[in-house]
Amino acid sequence: MGEFIENIHKAIKDLRNGKFILIYDDDKREGETDIIIASEFASPNSIQTMRKDGGGLIFLMTSNENAEKLKLPFLADLFSDIDDKYPVLKELIPDDIPYDTKSSFSLYINHRDTFTGITDIDRSLTMRKFAELTKKLRNIDEGIATKMFGKEFRSPGHVPICVAAKSLLDERAGHTELVVSLLKMANLTPVGSGCEIMGDNGKALSKDKAKQYAQRNGLVFLEGNEIVRTWKKWSK
Amino acid sequence: MGEFIENIHKAIKDLRNGKFILIYDDDKREGETDIIIASEFASPNSIQTMRKDGGGLIFLMTSNENAEKLKLPFLADLFSDIDDKYPVLKELIPDDIPYDTKSSFSLYINHRDTFTGITDIDRSLTMRKFAELTKKLRNIDEGIATKMFGKEFRSPGHVPICVAAKSLLDERAGHTELVVSLLKMANLTPVGSGCEIMGDNGKALSKDKAKQYAQRNGLVFLEGNEIVRTWKKWSK
Repeated sequence: MGEFIENIHKAIKDLRNGKFILIYDDDKREGETDIIIASEFASPNSIQTMRKDGGGLIFLMTSNENAEKLKLPFLADLFSDIDDKYPVLKELIPDDIPYDTKSSFSLYINHRDTFTGITDIDRSLTMRKFAELTKKLRNIDEGIATKMFGKEFRSPGHVPICVAAKSLLDERAGHTELVVSLLKMANLTPVGSGCEIMGDNGKALSKDKAKQYAQRNGLVFLEGNEIVRTWKKWSK
Repeated sequence: MGEFIENIHKAIKDLRNGKFILIYDDDKREGETDIIIASEFASPNSIQTMRKDGGGLIFLMTSNENAEKLKLPFLADLFSDIDDKYPVLKELIPDDIPYDTKSSFSLYINHRDTFTGITDIDRSLTMRKFAELTKKLRNIDEGIATKMFGKEFRSPGHVPICVAAKSLLDERAGHTELVVSLLKMANLTPVGSGCEIMGDNGKALSKDKAKQYAQRNGLVFLEGNEIVRTWKKWSK
């Protein structure tokens, strides 16, 4: 018990200092470890670490409130609203995701100052600027928020945004909800950057090997249930 | 002149043998080298090579005719058709892409037999099965094509599909058009897999360094204009 609280404290401290942490969700979900950083600290080097040591999708995560303010839709909802005009979307309905009921994907964005959008410089700019915008919007009216968003970003782009469930960990315990909860407990802007860590055998890196990677690199390794337990106490 | 024809021949032979080739678009476009394979040969190892040696976005490319048969929309068109309901899409209009006038992104898909969709096994399955479906559809009616597509795939997913311009290299000379043209000249299924190669300096790998990588690994290095010139003769 004491040990995992210590782990959470260290993770919060590291996130505040712009360091990576590792989060393994759960044997019963994806069974995947993601390498995570608070997006306000994302640099070209962070992207390089994520693509070299992670190798999965490099993505943004944000809170449901932030998405609501920016009027960011879930892509699955947007698709189902236009599937009369594009009937192929009816055929492609993602109703059989093995580890969850709902896809958390929203739009893919690029900052308008990026060139191709995919280089380490470009992706980190998109991420950092999205966190900065989120921070700025705290006291800004909804109507202006989407204008400010569009002034800085375009979509389609190369950086996907995943949006957390409304009731966060009470509803879903995916990496998006785990990361947003941690950022809230850390009192940081609720925008995280992450990437799944792949193994050399075609699968996700095993939990044991992810722990070894954490030790070698001096990174905190958290499991989903540790975050869920802390969150339940904290959010009461 | 003789040398580049030889290069094209070798590239076509390598694609047919399931080997990677490298394509640099143009100094005046993205200035980027992509590592490319015909998707019918994509294996977990191919994805590993793309993420480790490439590091950019791992994506599918297909012909405009195939997209039409599957009723695959350009994401930008789909967005503009539903921007009354989702006004944020009006703000995010991608009207300022520095190197081109139009985004070639269509949907992101996963094969329904994938688990998370992001592992090397999963992404290669999605790619290979998409090429197999395309091959099967050659003599199949449009109405059935989308049904067959939806039976095997879901969207949103982790593998983006880029769709080539209708008139291919007469209209646009991005990696998508360059690759689809080459696959047609090679008489292969017009579905390619690729990934942009990143450098260690935050930018795309320079042309010179990409050429060195090609030499070290025994891969053909082509430039966009070599493909364009060959295509113009071939498609007459």
